[in-house]
Amino acid sequence: MPRKRQTANPTALGDRADIDARMAFLIEAGKLAGVDRATRIVDGSRVENSAEHSWHLALFALTLGPHAPDGVSIDRVIRMLLLHDLVEIDAGDTPFFAPGSEDTAAQDAAECRAADRLFGLLPVEQARAFRALWDEFEAAETPDARFAKSLDRFQPPNLNLANGGGSWAEFGVDEDRLRERLGPRISRGAPTLWDWLSPKIADFFAKRRAD
Amino acid sequence: MPRKRQTANPTALGDRADIDARMAFLIEAGKLAGVDRATRIVDGSRVENSAEHSWHLALFALTLGPHAPDGVSIDRVIRMLLLHDLVEIDAGDTPFFAPGSEDTAAQDAAECRAADRLFGLLPVEQARAFRALWDEFEAAETPDARFAKSLDRFQPPNLNLANGGGSWAEFGVDEDRLRERLGPRISRGAPTLWDWLSPKIADFFAKRRAD
Repeated sequence: MPRKRQTANPTALGDRADIDARMAFLIEAGKLAGVDRATRIVDGSRVENSAEHSWHLALFALTLGPHAPDGVSIDRVIRMLLLHDLVEIDAGDTPFFAPGSEDTAAQDAAECRAADRLFGLLPVEQARAFRALWDEFEAAETPDARFAKSLDRFQPPNLNLANGGGSWAEFGVDEDRLRERLGPRISRGAPTLWDWLSPKIADFFAKRRAD
Repeated sequence: MPRKRQTANPTALGDRADIDARMAFLIEAGKLAGVDRATRIVDGSRVENSAEHSWHLALFALTLGPHAPDGVSIDRVIRMLLLHDLVEIDAGDTPFFAPGSEDTAAQDAAECRAADRLFGLLPVEQARAFRALWDEFEAAETPDARFAKSLDRFQPPNLNLANGGGSWAEFGVDEDRLRERLGPRISRGAPTLWDWLSPKIADFFAKRRAD
């Protein structure tokens, strides 16, 4: 196969060196399957890992796209969601309702260092593109990033509802705390989905109080 | 929230009924995390499941997009890869090198029934769109489907190379059998990636023969 001319332009790396870099990133990314989350999978048999969570979220985006606010690009949202948790390979996952999880400064710094290292494995042009998508997701200011962030908050309570309460029981989360922390975060980027979820949460806790 | 008028047109289902259907699909889809594959994850500690495999493949498409043949739409490839293994929830995974894996008629029929059931959970319009993407992937005739299929064959040998041989040893696969079955399938949709992988496979087996 003809090799392209090697220059300072990363797109002009030879095929072999260019694929070497992309594959080093992809093999390192595979470690995301070893990062456990607090939420349990739909049948409740074990906790979810961040790789399968990322797939499930991307499928949420594809399937619930018609309920995204106007102007959202589902393909960009999917790209963000495929990348959004990679930093956990170095920085780990912080459960949303874990004690101290609202003080995020140290975790944010660890995630930035992780992004530097992981995206730094890639050819420069793609490293910049992936980092820009991840920064956009984290800042949660564009409609695409807001919808992506809202899906990231919307999926776990749906797993918990499917498996009988899951991580809510483990972290002693009651309905008020759940609504206070989840409601604004889901409704900011996906108001239709929060309107759908809210009565299901009410039903779940009403039934638990009645038991 | 205003409810849309209910008519025979599925896009005009009320929001609640429409999201109910999409969420029934997404919760059922979550079972893909319970389908084990033959290939081991990058650190070799356990076998991969089809949910995390689907995420990894979508990330392969996003990262290796610059090496796709001209005219491939990476966003369509990603959508295909997010959906491609869902049928395994009912039909299970057939390891590529398992005895009898070349006789695919019974497996194909089981996968068709699974696609009918799973995509049938969705509102009609989306069921048709997802089924069309899955059929396109299975037929492997368009450039997008060929690239997606080639990635599905390209990822496992890379995991095996990362973890020291993995499922090749388990199924007694030698270099000739690997080249004969993998080479044409990867090079058909992603010739640059096969040209990159081929010498790595040669090195791996040369080293194993020398040990």
